[in-house]
Amino acid sequence: MHRDRFYTLSASCPDRVGIIARVSGFISEHGGWILESSFHSDPAIEGSEGRYFMRIEVKADSLPFALADFRECFRPIAEDLRMDWRLADSAVKKRVVILVSKQEHCLYDLMARWQSKELDIEIPCVISNHETLRGFVEWHGIPFHHVPIAADNKAEAYAEVQRLFEEAEGDTMVLARYMQILSADLCAAHPGRIINIHHSFLPSFVGAKPYHQAYQRGVKLIGATCHYVTADLDQGPIIEQDVIRIDHSDSPEDMVRYGKDIEKTVLARGLRFHLEDRVLVHGNKTVVFR
Amino acid sequence: MHRDRFYTLSASCPDRVGIIARVSGFISEHGGWILESSFHSDPAIEGSEGRYFMRIEVKADSLPFALADFRECFRPIAEDLRMDWRLADSAVKKRVVILVSKQEHCLYDLMARWQSKELDIEIPCVISNHETLRGFVEWHGIPFHHVPIAADNKAEAYAEVQRLFEEAEGDTMVLARYMQILSADLCAAHPGRIINIHHSFLPSFVGAKPYHQAYQRGVKLIGATCHYVTADLDQGPIIEQDVIRIDHSDSPEDMVRYGKDIEKTVLARGLRFHLEDRVLVHGNKTVVFR
Amino acid sequence: MHRDRFYTLSASCPDRVGIIARVSGFISEHGGWILESSFHSDPAIEGSEGRYFMRIEVKADSLPFALADFRECFRPIAEDLRMDWRLADSAVKKRVVILVSKQEHCLYDLMARWQSKELDIEIPCVISNHETLRGFVEWHGIPFHHVPIAADNKAEAYAEVQRLFEEAEGDTMVLARYMQILSADLCAAHPGRIINIHHSFLPSFVGAKPYHQAYQRGVKLIGATCHYVTADLDQGPIIEQDVIRIDHSDSPEDMVRYGKDIEKTVLARGLRFHLEDRVLVHGNKTVVFR
Amino acid sequence: MHRDRFYTLSASCPDRVGIIARVSGFISEHGGWILESSFHSDPAIEGSEGRYFMRIEVKADSLPFALADFRECFRPIAEDLRMDWRLADSAVKKRVVILVSKQEHCLYDLMARWQSKELDIEIPCVISNHETLRGFVEWHGIPFHHVPIAADNKAEAYAEVQRLFEEAEGDTMVLARYMQILSADLCAAHPGRIINIHHSFLPSFVGAKPYHQAYQRGVKLIGATCHYVTADLDQGPIIEQDVIRIDHSDSPEDMVRYGKDIEKTVLARGLRFHLEDRVLVHGNKTVVFR
Repeated sequence: MHRDRFYTLSASCPDRVGIIARVSGFISEHGGWILESSFHSDPAIEGSEGRYFMRIEVKADSLPFALADFRECFRPIAEDLRMDWRLADSAVKKRVVILVSKQEHCLYDLMARWQSKELDIEIPCVISNHETLRGFVEWHGIPFHHVPIAADNKAEAYAEVQRLFEEAEGDTMVLARYMQILSADLCAAHPGRIINIHHSFLPSFVGAKPYHQAYQRGVKLIGATCHYVTADLDQGPIIEQDVIRIDHSDSPEDMVRYGKDIEKTVLARGLRFHLEDRVLVHGNKTVVFR
Repeated sequence: MHRDRFYTLSASCPDRVGIIARVSGFISEHGGWILESSFHSDPAIEGSEGRYFMRIEVKADSLPFALADFRECFRPIAEDLRMDWRLADSAVKKRVVILVSKQEHCLYDLMARWQSKELDIEIPCVISNHETLRGFVEWHGIPFHHVPIAADNKAEAYAEVQRLFEEAEGDTMVLARYMQILSADLCAAHPGRIINIHHSFLPSFVGAKPYHQAYQRGVKLIGATCHYVTADLDQGPIIEQDVIRIDHSDSPEDMVRYGKDIEKTVLARGLRFHLEDRVLVHGNKTVVFR
Repeated sequence: MHRDRFYTLSASCPDRVGIIARVSGFISEHGGWILESSFHSDPAIEGSEGRYFMRIEVKADSLPFALADFRECFRPIAEDLRMDWRLADSAVKKRVVILVSKQEHCLYDLMARWQSKELDIEIPCVISNHETLRGFVEWHGIPFHHVPIAADNKAEAYAEVQRLFEEAEGDTMVLARYMQILSADLCAAHPGRIINIHHSFLPSFVGAKPYHQAYQRGVKLIGATCHYVTADLDQGPIIEQDVIRIDHSDSPEDMVRYGKDIEKTVLARGLRFHLEDRVLVHGNKTVVFR
Repeated sequence: MHRDRFYTLSASCPDRVGIIARVSGFISEHGGWILESSFHSDPAIEGSEGRYFMRIEVKADSLPFALADFRECFRPIAEDLRMDWRLADSAVKKRVVILVSKQEHCLYDLMARWQSKELDIEIPCVISNHETLRGFVEWHGIPFHHVPIAADNKAEAYAEVQRLFEEAEGDTMVLARYMQILSADLCAAHPGRIINIHHSFLPSFVGAKPYHQAYQRGVKLIGATCHYVTADLDQGPIIEQDVIRIDHSDSPEDMVRYGKDIEKTVLARGLRFHLEDRVLVHGNKTVVFR
């Protein structure tokens, strides 16, 4: 984060001979200094084509052109390799809209990271179905929108969330223990851009009250899962997970308390990977270049 | 393990005032020196009675009587408190029958612990559905029984396993990656005495090929679970679990390899807790006094 | 935390026969309902006397007397057993004074826990050698005292910290990444009541810039340590520690960032153990009844 | 491990523009299919030159030449880039000589991995200063050499170890809890080829009886460290580390027992990284491409 400005190319394409040579050759020809690079080849399984993933950081001032020209010059190669690709500029802050409910642990955690510039992002607004956290958000100088959710207003409410996200020119929507199930429309409108933290080690304990489910089953570790939101509840591509040890003396309430520490850490790690373009979605899985 | 001989009382009973006082008063009256003691009160939930759990180690030579008399003297208290209880003598080695298939990692691990007396047990025999590990077992001076399992001989085969276990006067049966599903009869005959290691972090990925299931789902940690075997596959009370981090570059074969390290460690820990009478079953859960 | 009011007895004494019987007998005689109890016998080593540690939670309304009478009635037993002991009332909130410097991560974390009542404490004031965090603290309705520290005013400054702590009737002082070395006088005045979070896995990397030391040594895990402050820098009794995995790609700045997550979690866990009277100091070590 | 034959290029060189392009261009020109590739740029610090590290696996049958020709063809590039480099063939098994003392846990663990081909190596012999483990080793069909170490024969003894290692054409020497300090000569003769497992989380608790040191200090986690052996005791480049949680109830003997599980796992992981040419030494640190 204390580094010079850089561009990040993240891409995937069908696997073949010469991909790295082609891409790194292009960068080298233009004098590009590679700060960091990661590659992964996902093998062909059962007849499917193998797929290649990459992420490359190039020092901005080592290149003779700016981002737009980089994009134009690289396009023919990308097309030839049939790439899904994107190019990001470390000097352009990502715009992250946070959705919360009443619980404060994830929000406080994200705000501390934002304050210290550990998360070097813009937070154009926070949206909540409750007024509880308005004061805390506004004290930080961030607009707070109250969008109540009730059984009979879901369509309108999520349309309003959608409108606020677009108005805010949001890149990423973070459900920081939002406790509401987004509409299928909203999920479909932003694939790979809505991040949720689920309070269990998925795929165990999908749905409501996972800590109580964990207590009933008598597991010895509980966890949390940061994943992209899709229309299938708690089934989206997993970005990051972690667990913590519990024992027989822990009540469901104790688990909720322990779980919060995992939730906020896992959400922050997953979000950071996403914001640094370290996460490439592959079907219902992710490649995460740490 | 380097300590003086001791007796271990492990017990559970309905919760009420004065349980510790009653039990520790009895021990104190007879001059018993308590080396270690653990208590747990499981709260009454939804109308059910609270339940109390305890485990107490008393130095053998501090008491004026031997185990049999200890048992007789204590019985009236146990009955009055409506206890499920047992009393063990650290000088009497537990007899552990190990069941294996072809994979060696858990067996080598258990044998190293047995050789070094870390596991201070008798292994009266090893039973396998394959001949693969006979040489290794017999080199250690332990009888090896080959009981083949086929689709059409399961009843007889498990009857033979049962007979061998009884003949060996086994206290505990350990399925060290046995890869076969025991008959319901065999499970029912030895509740709380058959220990399995399942190669997933239960309740995720029940059944066959859990690492392949984990690969498909794209989880970021994989685990293993040591549990008591019941007639419901992979549903018995969990004794111990642990996990290890993986990432997108790990194939199912890599996961199998990482998983082995977790499997053998979790099995050894769970087995140790069991052998030291640290595990008390409570419905489908366990209290584990570490 | 959602439980009924209870009294917590925490004590240590020379080991002998009958300690549990004596203490639990007393509680039982008065009808006391034990919610939770933990015992530990630290063995006699090299001629030193063995020592016994205990912590017992008794439901307040099961006893026929209030805390003061409990204390008086129990005193003869405590004296007879030569106990160091204390008795706490769950209905009386502990008063925690927090010292910070410029970094916000531990403070935000503690405040979120206080807001949600996960930490059910009073925070009578926050003291800092910088003005940086005044606004955040005051927004929460908590007084903020700026006590600058310079090379030539340390004696006066720490006298002022001492005065503010006493004026606030503080039970516990928390150095939440305070980054200053307290005077020996201040340390000596509050043994077992000042808690620090050190940003290394002690005893590795004592002193300044531990993450840079860790980077130089090329360790593969970094950690944090919550400990009681004594006059010997970073040498006090350790309450809690944890670590996180790093690798060759992590710069010292990355380690600082990862480290923050460990620091705040370890500090919060250690503080919680302390506030719940789960920590008993034994020489330069601690017994922590989780 | 179930993959096709491949060649592994591992190298480091001064950082500059175009390294990846040059190397991957060479591979691509010859039709080489890259299975896995990792790169790391270690930044210039305080006037020192930045350094670049890489590891590339190329499918053997995708290349038009065998290893020797690959080496010759690549040499001009390597020289031009001032590389330290090596090229390995997955079809050529590494030869690992294991040194043990009396403790069996690491040896059993390594042998189980060798039996299952998880470690696909040759073990030309095991050397020990005791006879204890001869039978176990010889049962596996591996020669066992007893080289006693006494205060007055160290020079001769280590000369004999050296001779046996050379006779065995060993690539790597593994000290599997060997408990003896190798001579400086022996260390100097095989830099980056002798691997030790130290039973503490270095740099804490260097030297003898680290678990007892850990007990005295009252740490809450203990660990183990796999490192290259240099003439400075316990100071060589760290390859891998891990820790396990303990508490006040654990005696030094308990720590020894817990520690064994960490030791064998960390040794096996570190050894595997080394054997797969994933470890590149950089001064007194390592780059480990997992």
